[in-house]
Amino acid sequence: MPNIRDARFLILATNGFEQSELMTPRDELRKAGAKVDVATPDGKKIRGWKMTDWGETVDADLKIADAKPADYDMLVLPGGQINPDLLRVNPDAMKIVRAFVESGKPIAAICHAPWLLVEADALRGKTATSYKSIKTDVKNAGANWVDQEVVFDGGIITSRNPDDLKAFVAKIIEVIESGKSAQRRVA
Amino acid sequence: MPNIRDARFLILATNGFEQSELMTPRDELRKAGAKVDVATPDGKKIRGWKMTDWGETVDADLKIADAKPADYDMLVLPGGQINPDLLRVNPDAMKIVRAFVESGKPIAAICHAPWLLVEADALRGKTATSYKSIKTDVKNAGANWVDQEVVFDGGIITSRNPDDLKAFVAKIIEVIESGKSAQRRVA
Repeated sequence: MPNIRDARFLILATNGFEQSELMTPRDELRKAGAKVDVATPDGKKIRGWKMTDWGETVDADLKIADAKPADYDMLVLPGGQINPDLLRVNPDAMKIVRAFVESGKPIAAICHAPWLLVEADALRGKTATSYKSIKTDVKNAGANWVDQEVVFDGGIITSRNPDDLKAFVAKIIEVIESGKSAQRRVA
Repeated sequence: MPNIRDARFLILATNGFEQSELMTPRDELRKAGAKVDVATPDGKKIRGWKMTDWGETVDADLKIADAKPADYDMLVLPGGQINPDLLRVNPDAMKIVRAFVESGKPIAAICHAPWLLVEADALRGKTATSYKSIKTDVKNAGANWVDQEVVFDGGIITSRNPDDLKAFVAKIIEVIESGKSAQRRVA
């Protein structure tokens, strides 16, 4: 049975990420013993968003273009209105998202981050949730949208907003420890 | 032939609107002699966004809930990453958008504002453009997405970004003056 202490997570983000949606998974997964790298477009620190205005700044561990999907067990995508809107037109970021989708490795996306999965056409036929404002975009991308704190289907974990963070992180750990992450193509 | 001086425009917006996309159409259309009302969720001033950070504040003329579609000839929707994401989950705003769609009165949407048309399912089968980041959302909503500074199809005017504002405003005036606005159902 895989252990969370051996797991390696890649977080992709840029300015305008909803700060709790990056910091909580990063900190909780590191506390559980996992390796967590934060990749940003320039490999430099990025500025978070706290509900309705700019928030805290976080450090980057590497540049998105230098991140190797083979080095990680799961991709974690924080939301925010600005961050995924910028990343979905960033070719380096979309290359990473598509590599995870194609390899069948799990992806966890919260709030507005499912836009990156819409961009990669990774939600077709899957059950998923998202922030309420992008429900129509997620449905139009072929997903079966449900209003739940966390959903895991077809290798993809989704949650709605910062209030769901506890369930989101718990599902990330459960998926790693159950070894379900490798069963994605069967799901 | 209708004259722009007799036209009445309603602009819907909230915090985080891309400032030039509200202020340029508002000012140019007023300069041309038209009546332009800016409606906001609380009927109070709202804070704009200038490319990558907060920008200028603009005054409101009325509350969105108090706006009557029958009083206007065209609905104008500015973009910004935050503004349309907030308005698409604002029932009063979506009631206005749907009323314009149903009545066949023209709607002009720039940048990220076509999200409001996606929300109203108003783009199906129509040719339209948008900011590049929401191209996939617009296509998934059934539109034929094209990369042009301005498009007018099925009563809907769309443009890509602030660089297209001149063409966007010119098309708004052209649609009003040609009387095409009334021919929407035939288009």
